[in-house]
Amino acid sequence: MPVSEIDTLGRDAKANAARCLEDLDTPCLVLDTDRMARNVTRLRSRLASHGVCLRPHLKTGKSVEVARRTMTTPQGPATVSTLKEAELFAAAGVTDLIYAVGIAPSKLAKVLDLRAKGIDLAIVLDTVEQAEAVAAASRAAGHSIPAFIEIDCDGHRSGVLPNDADRLVSIGRVLADGAELRGVLTHAGGSYAAKGIEALQACAEEERRSVVDAATILRGAGLPCPVVSVGSTPTAHNALDLTGVTEVRAGVFVFFDLVMAGIGICHVDDIALSVLATVIGHQHEKGWILIDAGWMAMSQDRGTSRQAVNQGYGIVCDGSGVPYDDLIVADANQEHGIIMVRPSSGGQLPDLRIGDRVRILPNHACATAAQHDRYHVVRGTSSVVEGEWPRFGGWS
Amino acid sequence: MPVSEIDTLGRDAKANAARCLEDLDTPCLVLDTDRMARNVTRLRSRLASHGVCLRPHLKTGKSVEVARRTMTTPQGPATVSTLKEAELFAAAGVTDLIYAVGIAPSKLAKVLDLRAKGIDLAIVLDTVEQAEAVAAASRAAGHSIPAFIEIDCDGHRSGVLPNDADRLVSIGRVLADGAELRGVLTHAGGSYAAKGIEALQACAEEERRSVVDAATILRGAGLPCPVVSVGSTPTAHNALDLTGVTEVRAGVFVFFDLVMAGIGICHVDDIALSVLATVIGHQHEKGWILIDAGWMAMSQDRGTSRQAVNQGYGIVCDGSGVPYDDLIVADANQEHGIIMVRPSSGGQLPDLRIGDRVRILPNHACATAAQHDRYHVVRGTSSVVEGEWPRFGGWS
Repeated sequence: MPVSEIDTLGRDAKANAARCLEDLDTPCLVLDTDRMARNVTRLRSRLASHGVCLRPHLKTGKSVEVARRTMTTPQGPATVSTLKEAELFAAAGVTDLIYAVGIAPSKLAKVLDLRAKGIDLAIVLDTVEQAEAVAAASRAAGHSIPAFIEIDCDGHRSGVLPNDADRLVSIGRVLADGAELRGVLTHAGGSYAAKGIEALQACAEEERRSVVDAATILRGAGLPCPVVSVGSTPTAHNALDLTGVTEVRAGVFVFFDLVMAGIGICHVDDIALSVLATVIGHQHEKGWILIDAGWMAMSQDRGTSRQAVNQGYGIVCDGSGVPYDDLIVADANQEHGIIMVRPSSGGQLPDLRIGDRVRILPNHACATAAQHDRYHVVRGTSSVVEGEWPRFGGWS
Repeated sequence: MPVSEIDTLGRDAKANAARCLEDLDTPCLVLDTDRMARNVTRLRSRLASHGVCLRPHLKTGKSVEVARRTMTTPQGPATVSTLKEAELFAAAGVTDLIYAVGIAPSKLAKVLDLRAKGIDLAIVLDTVEQAEAVAAASRAAGHSIPAFIEIDCDGHRSGVLPNDADRLVSIGRVLADGAELRGVLTHAGGSYAAKGIEALQACAEEERRSVVDAATILRGAGLPCPVVSVGSTPTAHNALDLTGVTEVRAGVFVFFDLVMAGIGICHVDDIALSVLATVIGHQHEKGWILIDAGWMAMSQDRGTSRQAVNQGYGIVCDGSGVPYDDLIVADANQEHGIIMVRPSSGGQLPDLRIGDRVRILPNHACATAAQHDRYHVVRGTSSVVEGEWPRFGGWS
């Protein structure tokens, strides 16, 4: 069972507590918990000043240890992207969860199983068909499943348009017959492509207004709408006004990454996650250094390729996590990374020898972390590995 | 331990043998073993007609069950991309292995451990520094580690240029003092970007000539070079002449994928791997169908985006694996896929309802499979799940 795997890895971790980064097999994932703690405090303080609750998205960490340091209480609230996350975090004591991907009717049995164990797991939907399935399943089980209506605030993915009163009220009325309308929820995914602070502030206001408008329509039709949920790391860090919003969801803020640095939400030295790699070769005449971290270790996320500065597969740092000037993993195969000085920069190739260690900062923390089964925990520039934290993947 | 994990999953699989695809949680990975068997037979027959040995690369499947159906004997030969693969396949009885990523000196202890257990694990290197480390480790252990000199046949990654006699002979002589020069090895990674059969044949000939030339130089200097190893799926399927070559390595041929179909190595209906997904929504006015397979289930490999036909995140098939006309996963978030008719095509959006199942053919089998921990095995268009085969990831 997954939970026992977690316990086992947790115990192994303690036995390894005295190791240094130099002792680790490469490639592997390194987490700087000093940076993570700073990132968590920063968003918590910001939202506290607005008087709204943080419901962190646990899909970034997929780790009980990370979740415990991200949530405001051991019981939550929190957000998940798969029912496996819901099951594993529930087993670890989290009781207040939203599964924030549109529900498939075949998944309702698992939702009811978790609710029967006392987990307040809410779901998300945006069609009358889904609402009918949820209401029918609730009636059959004699247990109301709480559901959010997803709102489409920026056209990037799913959701009901915030001014589509007919569809909002239809969904709400179908849910009222056996299920529970918990509220409205949106995600400003478009904010990842925003350029500049004013654009980010505009995304945040659009996100806020869309759910507040939808909530107003539902309440005006006599339907309940207790929770008004928004969320994305860029908007969470840029919203000027959260009036009418009751909670904010965000995920990648916990680690940050080069995409977030590229749109100005964090600095490169806020990024808590890196991949430790070993130099395995050179092509001197081409200015290449080869390492044993390819796309399998970094993921194929090239999010910064659409930004002003393309970071390739990641920024190269020395073993203590300090970036070299203009040095990136410019190309990658499955288990090979090719380090180069950024084209048309003034950077110089450092004198890295076979066997030397580097750390690579990722484009997208969620994607890179997903390629690994554990975090090697360090604090700041120390090379002491304080422990190993397991992480999980998959869907069932 | 990883091996016991595999055994556990193997037992679970038997209990689930009577299920159908409709019963599976989504997203999940589906493997059509009829197609896989056809793909394996095709390459084996081709190489047999050339009189050379197939040394399959097990990094694509990362599965004991897949490996057993790919190798010519249960003991190998085979190729791996990580030492974890070497350890797990060795534990499953494979004794003839090449770890085909340039060796880091810190990995030699693990290599020696496996060799002490009777596994003929050979390594790869392309510098005098690595050869010195391997020779020193061999002398210290009193055991010769066999090493291949990697040859750079097309400038795409690592390796010694085939005409760099000084470097080839220097490496060979350093190895001779305690270690073993097993041969020369190259990988025509550039063939993945070749356009047309003549270009592919030229890549194959360049690959062959580079290692044969390097072997001739080594032998001319009085050094041994018993094994001459080439390999990539595109060149393995297009080489006209393999004179002087003793073995061919290839990986993705076992499953094939849309990148291979795009360069003409296979047909779309040879692709043995797909991701089963469920429809979770629509944006009717945009012509979008939303599914619960995003980039976490498909990987972010967009290999066909550099080809004549961009397949997005994959081609959409019905539940039995038959492609819809011009229907692709055009965009993806972590757990959402957006299905659209291919832009500027004549295709029509099929009438897919909430809860309907589709199967998505991947751009890159190695990358998509790596996002999953098991295969759900089917045969042809049957929906019966014959079993579950575990697969592994990670490095240690």
